[in-house]
Amino acid sequence: MAILLTGGAGFIASTLIGRLLSSGETVIAVDNLSRGSLDNVKSWLDHPGFAFVRADLSELTEYRDAAMAAAERGPITEIWHLAANSDIPAGIRHPDVDLRDTFMTTFNTLKVMEEFGIRQIFFASSSAIYGDLQGTRLTESTGPLFPISNYGAMKLASEAVITAGVEKFLDRALIFRFPNVVGVPATHGVLLDFMQRLKQTPDLLQVLGNGTQRKPYLHVTDLVDGMIFVRQHCRSKRDAFNIGPNDDGIAVSQIAEEVVAHIAPGAKLQFGSEDKGWLGDVPRFRYSTQKIKQLGWSPKLNSLGAIRRAIDEIGDQVFSSAPV
Amino acid sequence: MAILLTGGAGFIASTLIGRLLSSGETVIAVDNLSRGSLDNVKSWLDHPGFAFVRADLSELTEYRDAAMAAAERGPITEIWHLAANSDIPAGIRHPDVDLRDTFMTTFNTLKVMEEFGIRQIFFASSSAIYGDLQGTRLTESTGPLFPISNYGAMKLASEAVITAGVEKFLDRALIFRFPNVVGVPATHGVLLDFMQRLKQTPDLLQVLGNGTQRKPYLHVTDLVDGMIFVRQHCRSKRDAFNIGPNDDGIAVSQIAEEVVAHIAPGAKLQFGSEDKGWLGDVPRFRYSTQKIKQLGWSPKLNSLGAIRRAIDEIGDQVFSSAPV
Repeated sequence: MAILLTGGAGFIASTLIGRLLSSGETVIAVDNLSRGSLDNVKSWLDHPGFAFVRADLSELTEYRDAAMAAAERGPITEIWHLAANSDIPAGIRHPDVDLRDTFMTTFNTLKVMEEFGIRQIFFASSSAIYGDLQGTRLTESTGPLFPISNYGAMKLASEAVITAGVEKFLDRALIFRFPNVVGVPATHGVLLDFMQRLKQTPDLLQVLGNGTQRKPYLHVTDLVDGMIFVRQHCRSKRDAFNIGPNDDGIAVSQIAEEVVAHIAPGAKLQFGSEDKGWLGDVPRFRYSTQKIKQLGWSPKLNSLGAIRRAIDEIGDQVFSSAPV
Repeated sequence: MAILLTGGAGFIASTLIGRLLSSGETVIAVDNLSRGSLDNVKSWLDHPGFAFVRADLSELTEYRDAAMAAAERGPITEIWHLAANSDIPAGIRHPDVDLRDTFMTTFNTLKVMEEFGIRQIFFASSSAIYGDLQGTRLTESTGPLFPISNYGAMKLASEAVITAGVEKFLDRALIFRFPNVVGVPATHGVLLDFMQRLKQTPDLLQVLGNGTQRKPYLHVTDLVDGMIFVRQHCRSKRDAFNIGPNDDGIAVSQIAEEVVAHIAPGAKLQFGSEDKGWLGDVPRFRYSTQKIKQLGWSPKLNSLGAIRRAIDEIGDQVFSSAPV
């Protein structure tokens, strides 16, 4: 029995693969390496339970070939679908990016699952599906769902075709709605952005937006732990879970101060005037995590703890790395 | 100034066009004629405010050409996007149908709107986006949104990319969530199905499902009236409205009895055993129409009134029509 993991060379996969392999699963990671990197999986390439396939899953024929190759390692019993565009501004500039990398990879996932008789899917969704509900505490049933970015729109569209798939042929579809996730190997996000800026100008940190944006942050190790917990303990055929810290998040201004204090003490902070960092950014949101808590799970780190741990980790990644 | 109307040769367009023309608008109807028919627009072909363009709007280049042709009649100021697959079972059998005819036509609508500087969209969405919430009274904010058909999934996906478009460039996006809509020219739906069955076997009406399905029905004249009312009176930049009767709907068994009484008195009714008519069918739903009522609108007919009027109309269509 094997797990097919899409987006298998990405940020979150690199932690998830380790967890799945250590519990004895066979994992076939698939990625087109457009944003992911082979570096993220190289430590497992010799592991007997692991294989990597390079494929662009927005192309159905490539997806079929990848699934065929994966099935040689054992019948595929579940797909963890993490492949997506993760660059929100890129998807606003060029809507085809989210269409192709987020939605069409999901649409093709369902086609391949039906063809290959794979009946369980675990899907990496996002707080972005909720759009900007002005600080409402977001439960899994909150509406209306009016996403403000193509990223959020294509994640919601993906949820929708997955839940429709349950009616037709899926035995189980669990949707994980991620908050902001931090950790290494960082590929994008506020911490990497801040540190790259400080690497350029060690005495000045320019912040996009006025710093009042406030969001919950989760460390990637907690996120992966939460997903695996839900997979083990949730008996629903079709369900969605917010995975997040049990707090209301922290402000970007505080994150900036933490980064400066740890990485470049004395650097000056300079804020923008807008209340959002970029077009499509939801400046403030609060998660209800009641549902996953009632299932029995809580993260080890709160937002500040996750940020502090990730500052150390990403600091190493950015400042200690040998030139490529 | 001109209105571009997609799905312009379809069931609902045939009533909508008349209303828009009679209030002095210029209307360019676009349709690929895969499910729509030129018959539905032929009475306006000589109207100075009307033009018809045949194009498959799931192909971006065809959409651009159609918009270019339409713009010759005056700058396009709004798009009414009604083009979609309307055959739910077909979309479950072949997911590409809803992808192409419902979602890609919407995705391309947004691309063309951005390119042509068209900033207002009115979108025909559906109760199907709510999935099967087991009789919950559905408000526009009800969740979770887990559609059970690809039809519903692609309507929700369409809503999502439209609301994301508001963040980027749209001035106004109004989403109309239709219930079951009846009237002529009927192209699908329970009444047409019943009458076509009775035409084949005048003494027997076989009903898909056990007859307990219960849904609100709206007459197409009321639907069009409601949409135009919302366009005139809603000042939101981005909003969604359930449009429906102010009742909890009627059961399929009652509809069957009404059809038999009016069309084939004495015919025997035979019900199936399932509580839904087909895969992807939401057997029971109830609309909250508070929001549109507060805006000041109510339909003229309730569910039973809409069904009775449509039985007369569709009866004429099915039984009096000359052989084609």
